[in-house]
Amino acid sequence: MTTGVRRRLGVEERRRQLIEVALELFSNRSPDEVSIDEIAAAAGISRPLVYHYFPGKLSLYEAALQRAAQDLAERFEEPQDGPLGARLLRVMSRFFDFVDEHGPGFSALMRGGPAVGSSTTNALIDSVRQAAYVQILAHLQVTRPSPRLDLVVRSWVSLAESTALIWLDGRRIPREELERQLVHDFAALAAVSAAYDEEMAALLRRILAAEPADGPFTDLVERLALLAPV
Amino acid sequence: MTTGVRRRLGVEERRRQLIEVALELFSNRSPDEVSIDEIAAAAGISRPLVYHYFPGKLSLYEAALQRAAQDLAERFEEPQDGPLGARLLRVMSRFFDFVDEHGPGFSALMRGGPAVGSSTTNALIDSVRQAAYVQILAHLQVTRPSPRLDLVVRSWVSLAESTALIWLDGRRIPREELERQLVHDFAALAAVSAAYDEEMAALLRRILAAEPADGPFTDLVERLALLAPV
Repeated sequence: MTTGVRRRLGVEERRRQLIEVALELFSNRSPDEVSIDEIAAAAGISRPLVYHYFPGKLSLYEAALQRAAQDLAERFEEPQDGPLGARLLRVMSRFFDFVDEHGPGFSALMRGGPAVGSSTTNALIDSVRQAAYVQILAHLQVTRPSPRLDLVVRSWVSLAESTALIWLDGRRIPREELERQLVHDFAALAAVSAAYDEEMAALLRRILAAEPADGPFTDLVERLALLAPV
Repeated sequence: MTTGVRRRLGVEERRRQLIEVALELFSNRSPDEVSIDEIAAAAGISRPLVYHYFPGKLSLYEAALQRAAQDLAERFEEPQDGPLGARLLRVMSRFFDFVDEHGPGFSALMRGGPAVGSSTTNALIDSVRQAAYVQILAHLQVTRPSPRLDLVVRSWVSLAESTALIWLDGRRIPREELERQLVHDFAALAAVSAAYDEEMAALLRRILAAEPADGPFTDLVERLALLAPV
């Protein structure tokens, strides 16, 4: 190995360390409130050295966000084995782990943080939504979604985001309940859509037929039937 | 009347005219793409005169957005008479009228337009969500919502937003179907929540008992029951 190669690795390691330190700070307070001085202090380096690796706070914020987006997208990955309801429930548990770990930063970002409206930030948020969308279609074994299935999946992804944001604002409902509720919400939105569309109805029947009697989907349908007026 | 009073009215009228012209332009194309020159031409005045009334494009954009936000919030107002499902369906029809009229501007704003992240813009968006929230609670005759009802109402408002945005992207589903679907979605999210919470279940039973047999809520519950595995 030449010195040049070793120095290049050092740069990458330093950048990684700064991203980790920044992500920790941006996760626990609104990124608006985090200064470059604080990031430098937490990393044990000088302020000018931070600027040597990142030209400004925005570029460091975007790098941290990219790391977080990749982390979140990886948590959506789930083996395609076993009942769908249980798979989605495990993903929801990992999603809430992420939201829990990055609470204030997640809120600030989704509610309009410092870098919102920047094309990089918007593209990162969209890439995470797209990763969720692609995973769900893969688990449903659908390659060409109809407009109605597309709507159900995309609008449910948005519902999961807003549910997490509302949860973060006071944490007044146990997160385990919301994880399970979001699995039920998916079935409920699909069921509403199935009322208009035979393709959705066929898909939902296929899902429900494969669900175990004690799974979250079956549980929901039984509870809903009890609410019907007699 | 003094000349001073007449001149002041003239200023207000001119501002109103500019806001209307700008709102029309911002509604039909992404606000990024609309220049002050175009606004001046459409209003039939000079560019410097536009700046006399509004210091810059952002302030005119915010004024146009304020007008649009007020317009939308007024469309949520609905007399508290008759079955709840039919009331919500009428509001959804007026909501989609608004989305239809302001399509590109609505998309640009909600997806991260030029002024997104400005505190004025975020406050306006939040004020419209809050107006929707307050109207729904008033119709449900609830003054102190439980955390679970709060979540259902707020997350449904967010679902209505995302459904409208997805609809605008290609308009691949008839809007009348989505208006009805959102009424059903409200019942479905409330029903899921009722599975966890006796207060929500009591509220939902009260709503369903007052619904006519041909109303959208009753229709949904019957269709859902048909999907239950036998």
